[in-house]
Amino acid sequence: MKPVKVGIAGLGTVGSGTVNVLQRNAQEIARRIGRPIEIAHIGARRPNPACNIDGIRVSADVFELARDPELDILVELIGGTTTARELVLTAIEHGKHIVTANKALIAEHGNAIFRAAHERGVDVAFEASVAGGIPILKALGEGLAANHIKWVAGIINGTGNFILTEMRDKGRDFAEVLKEAQALGYAEADPTFDVEGIDAAHKLTILASIAFGIPLQFSKVYTEGISRITAEDIKAADYFGYCIKHLGIAKDTGNGVELRVHPTLIPKEVLLASVNGVMNAVMIDGDAVGPTLFYGAGAGAEPTASAVVADVIELGRALTVDHDERVPYLGFHADAMSEMPVLGIDEVECSFYIRLHVQDRTGVLADITRILSDKGISIEAMYQKDVDDNEPVPVVLMTHRIRESAMREALEQIAALEAVLDDIMRIRVETLDA
Amino acid sequence: MKPVKVGIAGLGTVGSGTVNVLQRNAQEIARRIGRPIEIAHIGARRPNPACNIDGIRVSADVFELARDPELDILVELIGGTTTARELVLTAIEHGKHIVTANKALIAEHGNAIFRAAHERGVDVAFEASVAGGIPILKALGEGLAANHIKWVAGIINGTGNFILTEMRDKGRDFAEVLKEAQALGYAEADPTFDVEGIDAAHKLTILASIAFGIPLQFSKVYTEGISRITAEDIKAADYFGYCIKHLGIAKDTGNGVELRVHPTLIPKEVLLASVNGVMNAVMIDGDAVGPTLFYGAGAGAEPTASAVVADVIELGRALTVDHDERVPYLGFHADAMSEMPVLGIDEVECSFYIRLHVQDRTGVLADITRILSDKGISIEAMYQKDVDDNEPVPVVLMTHRIRESAMREALEQIAALEAVLDDIMRIRVETLDA
Repeated sequence: MKPVKVGIAGLGTVGSGTVNVLQRNAQEIARRIGRPIEIAHIGARRPNPACNIDGIRVSADVFELARDPELDILVELIGGTTTARELVLTAIEHGKHIVTANKALIAEHGNAIFRAAHERGVDVAFEASVAGGIPILKALGEGLAANHIKWVAGIINGTGNFILTEMRDKGRDFAEVLKEAQALGYAEADPTFDVEGIDAAHKLTILASIAFGIPLQFSKVYTEGISRITAEDIKAADYFGYCIKHLGIAKDTGNGVELRVHPTLIPKEVLLASVNGVMNAVMIDGDAVGPTLFYGAGAGAEPTASAVVADVIELGRALTVDHDERVPYLGFHADAMSEMPVLGIDEVECSFYIRLHVQDRTGVLADITRILSDKGISIEAMYQKDVDDNEPVPVVLMTHRIRESAMREALEQIAALEAVLDDIMRIRVETLDA
Repeated sequence: MKPVKVGIAGLGTVGSGTVNVLQRNAQEIARRIGRPIEIAHIGARRPNPACNIDGIRVSADVFELARDPELDILVELIGGTTTARELVLTAIEHGKHIVTANKALIAEHGNAIFRAAHERGVDVAFEASVAGGIPILKALGEGLAANHIKWVAGIINGTGNFILTEMRDKGRDFAEVLKEAQALGYAEADPTFDVEGIDAAHKLTILASIAFGIPLQFSKVYTEGISRITAEDIKAADYFGYCIKHLGIAKDTGNGVELRVHPTLIPKEVLLASVNGVMNAVMIDGDAVGPTLFYGAGAGAEPTASAVVADVIELGRALTVDHDERVPYLGFHADAMSEMPVLGIDEVECSFYIRLHVQDRTGVLADITRILSDKGISIEAMYQKDVDDNEPVPVVLMTHRIRESAMREALEQIAALEAVLDDIMRIRVETLDA
């Protein structure tokens, strides 16, 4: 089947991430859509060493893409609102479907863009414009579509969240942490957009429209930044049981919608309070589902590309499949299922927690550790509780990673030791590192 | 436009929740789809006082629905795998699209059901079968479709998580907490399905297929329950910096897939460790997006109905809209946007954190509290730090809920007091209660 032809306008951080994801996962993506994606045209003034575009047509003028009759989809990643707006409207005029990561463009010009797209019969997808890799617009507009949404509250600017997290963890003041964030590349030289909440206000505008079915109204968002927060405030909030987060909040009060971005005290025990560093998270409270939370990376080349390419896949599916199975039942097409084997539990490798009770006599621990070591199992941590004489002694240990089968054999031998008093508890350990 | 006609088979907890959500949010749902949903036929042996089905055709034999030529969609909520399988296959034969919340049915008979549906050209949607109201299948199969999924790890059984949370918080043993869970209605009289991990294994089977594009293979899931975990283990894990959760884990190791449900130690600082009580959460690690987490209610009438009705909306949209705009750009159709006003910040009501520095002299606090009280602002908590003589004294207070305008006026008056030394910090407080 003929590939879905995509043009990518802009080859900066997100553009190169998009090229890399489309190339690296080309096979899996084709299994999901039913046919391959081809990057047929790139619009960029210069190549980006972060990706390989050998053999792909490149135009310095991005408007060449808008007019390219070959393209099914134009991916707008040039940023800004002036040229980007013109580019998107020109591409729509030429019948291209649009994917964009541009929150300012959608928040400020979305109403006009959607009107034009509707007239021309094309789709506009912008999942990447809010909270980067988190599929939050899909969750809100489709996954939770049964609900009357009561409110949405999100940490939707990673720079601001990084700064507030550092201020809290290290007791340092705003200006100092901002410098560090700039050195690490988390904050721009001119940080206004992030720390004064304009970026978050763009995203909140989009979230609110999808939550409540209201037009995009960026100019009506109340916006307050975090630059006035002091280390003293963070400490005082903590004293009262709160932490300070920079939130975007959209709430249906029954007689109107609140749209506001500002520093906010939230109770330390709510999940949102545990979202730290550059990570983003959005809470949604729906009348049927209750409180939900969606967490992930809100920025960066590949997390943003994850959302851009998801939109490309969605449009690719719509251009490909029959009505009966718009999204394949199991995400991948039935004739493209993998025969990857399911491994038996003996082949699984992880760390283990082991707890047993032994008689308090010399040599028992030596026996246990010898058996473990014979099976190649090394101990990461251990403790043995002091108890009264002649009481069974609890021994608890954590091992390094080892195959399940080795652990099973070792535990069988340990269980056979005379000094081991009852069943041994064995629980697997996962650190859930990315 | 003629409504989308839906038949609901089964009027238990989830069935009545589905009726209630479809009725209560009928207007918003119609704005999302472009035409209304009509519950045209219910299959139930008896009415359920939890919902009102006046005027709706009811059949005691659910197979009447499968054969009803009026219906576009059959919603299967009878549970079990024998009759449910036959019902779904019969409805597919008669050209109905299917929505189901039945994890056992999909995990054990999904491959055959999808084959039949594909041949007949109908869709089968089952978002509610995994993690209740969390739109996790959509996130995995669509929102994160650009990624090669590395692993999925989830708390996907609320009963088990409630028991482990109680054991940890109260230092109590399994058997005792299980009884409490049964009394609260969180655990069945026969709790095997939940606490031995069979329910979680059904859900993991479905998650793994969508993550990796492998056929549903329920029989290959390794399953271990939580009934052997003791209070001693939970305490020992805590000592090492871990907490114990009952996880379903699906991992692509590169030479096969691990599918396993078992108690797991996870570091206390990962977000999943903060998911407590009956709540569910699923972590997904994708090669582009990195770690993500999706949190919400995993069971209950309306959270499950939220997912059932989202699937009905999705099918309703597919049956309604033209290709250009399968999901409306902003979730709601352009001609159905709300004119709900956006409120000014002065109309917003919330609690406030106030921090200021004052001269250490008699009467200052009295002045401040008088101004607040004149504006109807009451103080929830307050502290004043001891400092050396003649130093500025920091005063921090938290108020009860009050309109922004009243607070602004009060703060203007307080700022004008001679004893108030510098800018007053005012931060809004949100408890994020559902």
